Amino acid sequence: MTEQKATNVTWHHGEVTRADRYQLLQQKGATIWFTGLSGSGKSTVAVALEAALHQRGKLCYRLDGDNVRLGINKNLGFSAEDRTENIRRIGEISKLFVDAGVIALSSFVSPYRADRDLVRALHEAAGIDFIEVYVDVPLAVAEERDPKGLYKKARAGEIKNFTGISDPYEAPLTPELVLPSHEMSLEDEVDAVLKLLHARGIVPNA
Amino acid sequence: MTEQKATNVTWHHGEVTRADRYQLLQQKGATIWFTGLSGSGKSTVAVALEAALHQRGKLCYRLDGDNVRLGINKNLGFSAEDRTENIRRIGEISKLFVDAGVIALSSFVSPYRADRDLVRALHEAAGIDFIEVYVDVPLAVAEERDPKGLYKKARAGEIKNFTGISDPYEAPLTPELVLPSHEMSLEDEVDAVLKLLHARGIVPNA
Repeated sequence: MTEQKATNVTWHHGEVTRADRYQLLQQKGATIWFTGLSGSGKSTVAVALEAALHQRGKLCYRLDGDNVRLGINKNLGFSAEDRTENIRRIGEISKLFVDAGVIALSSFVSPYRADRDLVRALHEAAGIDFIEVYVDVPLAVAEERDPKGLYKKARAGEIKNFTGISDPYEAPLTPELVLPSHEMSLEDEVDAVLKLLHARGIVPNA
Repeated sequence: MTEQKATNVTWHHGEVTRADRYQLLQQKGATIWFTGLSGSGKSTVAVALEAALHQRGKLCYRLDGDNVRLGINKNLGFSAEDRTENIRRIGEISKLFVDAGVIALSSFVSPYRADRDLVRALHEAAGIDFIEVYVDVPLAVAEERDPKGLYKKARAGEIKNFTGISDPYEAPLTPELVLPSHEMSLEDEVDAVLKLLHARGIVPNA
């Protein structure tokens, strides 16, 4: 067992700051917000980026439908009001993670510009980085991929208000990065994000 | 400027796991949940513990009224239903932080046993540590301290449903730790929590 050293506690007075946590982790927190159609490849690049960052000793955490929709947001549906509240909460959670020092990788269709801009505004008001990455493929490509069979169901009328089919996707006007995943290798996508994070001082030594 | 090394990306296939993050941080995530009356000293010990952990190179993050009530939970009031939803959301957020590898220090009156037990159950279902710390002082002590002048207002009827005065505080039946802050030094309180974290392998080398 490791030696017990936790006695005779001393500490500096005053609260630990965000800057202290960034120093500890040797990184700057930031939200990388992946937006795009279902099937555009958001999660694929987020998973690959997560692995690349971890390999470089950087702490990141992916927020996606699996850990958010089934947890904190399980009391929300898919009405316009609930979709907005869904994105607002995710934005607030991402902001907390960034304040903690973590690089938050948030991967959600997030089809409405106003919702994403609200999340951006939350981050800017807190003085933290919000990096919008538009994973941009034509609808035909996403529908052809249809990894979860959702487009087929939407076309058959089995899913109502499906983004790209019966509900709009409002593309970002000035995203920090655009990734046309049908025209790039996954390696190049990850590389493009890493370069941006490096340029912004988020992963200074990676 | 630091050398640009972010090109020629390679990564391991497969997702980064919770265990990978614990390894990176050299700690195990956990939620330390401080419950007790207003004025019991929850925030005081959480702030001091945060500093002690940070000094040992451990990543922790405090969740409290300041960053939660004004952010993600700003659309909740103080009805019984909203209080329950408030604690549920905080529990889910704490769980996400722990999954990310962070030691979450959650400091909330959280007066209802059922609400706290729900948070505990969320953690246990996810296989992660929930450590309930009851900061236990007699009401008379908390009211005498009255750091925010809230008891005075509650006694004057200016605040309705105030825990300890006009709303119940349901003490934990089997908390992991009890801290009678009126009978212990702050150093001893922090030391007691650190010893518990050490014994549980949450801060193995601190």
